[in-house]
Amino acid sequence: MKKGKFIVLEGIDGSGTTTHSNKLANWIRSKNLEVMVTEEPTVGAIGKIIRKYLFSGEGSPPVHALLFAADRAEHTEKVIKPSIISGIIVISDRYVESSIVYQAAEGLDIEWIEAINKFAIEPDLTIFLDVDPGIALARKREVREKFENIEFLKEVRRIYLERIRVKNFPVIDASRPIEVVHEDIVRCVESFLFKT
Amino acid sequence: MKKGKFIVLEGIDGSGTTTHSNKLANWIRSKNLEVMVTEEPTVGAIGKIIRKYLFSGEGSPPVHALLFAADRAEHTEKVIKPSIISGIIVISDRYVESSIVYQAAEGLDIEWIEAINKFAIEPDLTIFLDVDPGIALARKREVREKFENIEFLKEVRRIYLERIRVKNFPVIDASRPIEVVHEDIVRCVESFLFKT
Repeated sequence: MKKGKFIVLEGIDGSGTTTHSNKLANWIRSKNLEVMVTEEPTVGAIGKIIRKYLFSGEGSPPVHALLFAADRAEHTEKVIKPSIISGIIVISDRYVESSIVYQAAEGLDIEWIEAINKFAIEPDLTIFLDVDPGIALARKREVREKFENIEFLKEVRRIYLERIRVKNFPVIDASRPIEVVHEDIVRCVESFLFKT
Repeated sequence: MKKGKFIVLEGIDGSGTTTHSNKLANWIRSKNLEVMVTEEPTVGAIGKIIRKYLFSGEGSPPVHALLFAADRAEHTEKVIKPSIISGIIVISDRYVESSIVYQAAEGLDIEWIEAINKFAIEPDLTIFLDVDPGIALARKREVREKFENIEFLKEVRRIYLERIRVKNFPVIDASRPIEVVHEDIVRCVESFLFKT
């Protein structure tokens, strides 16, 4: 059934997941492969509420976690799965791993976050863009969200690194210039797409 | 800490949970006790999406279950818990039990629905208004929601009754005239509020 691939870029805020998802998509397209970029929270009705809540400070961690899980379950069913089945390479700018580390950093139980995300799918490749929280924050022109403060991002990064050690995801040093990081991502994806 | 009470009315669509929540509130008020009625889905941002989805047929059962859980977690934290702590008797027109039976009737795993509702609280009293699905549907002037068809409501009622047997909730025959049903509810609540 499955013909396409599902690639996820993860990292703390300011690590460049959005920039690199788009640059990676352009590179994949240049290889004459069909590709799409998607992101979380989505642009749908549930994603809109999540963005509103994160900007305004409304809602508690369990509410955010459940909304992210609902948004992801819907998007996975309606967009990600059908695209993969039709042969498209789907790049997601964040996925379940983001929910786990961000909401665990807010004090929620990791097993519970995994449980509520039962309807998400396993990515074929997850790449972690690692960057120092100080550098990450300096990159952002305006700090608007509750998640964007250094102590919190340090904790998020710590949990990311702890999980990555176990899951063995590729880690790319994203504190370097964009083009250098991009080359590393391309090397990683190239070896995954063409040498496996 | 806890001074108020949390009373939930449950039943299939058309069983009269809304009518009887309001009538019960009036009776409690007549006893000079503070009372509020709340309902699910709520009138907040998440509740609005749920209503839209149920009317339009959008979203899959897991998405609905997660949205109901998010709506409930938020409402419990912001409205239900503080009201109970301040001494108010809170009547909820449906609560977790509705999610469990409706979404189980749609094929979801009951343990999973219970797990995602970890942040809901245990009602002090749950009353089940039992009515034949045929009678329930005949009462509704317009059938607008996906949940409102006889075969589905039969399955919902079957699961309700199965759970009620285990949980030992009071069951009131709600196929009778409103005033008769109301008297039974009042008797039940009176004995709970004043004789315990």
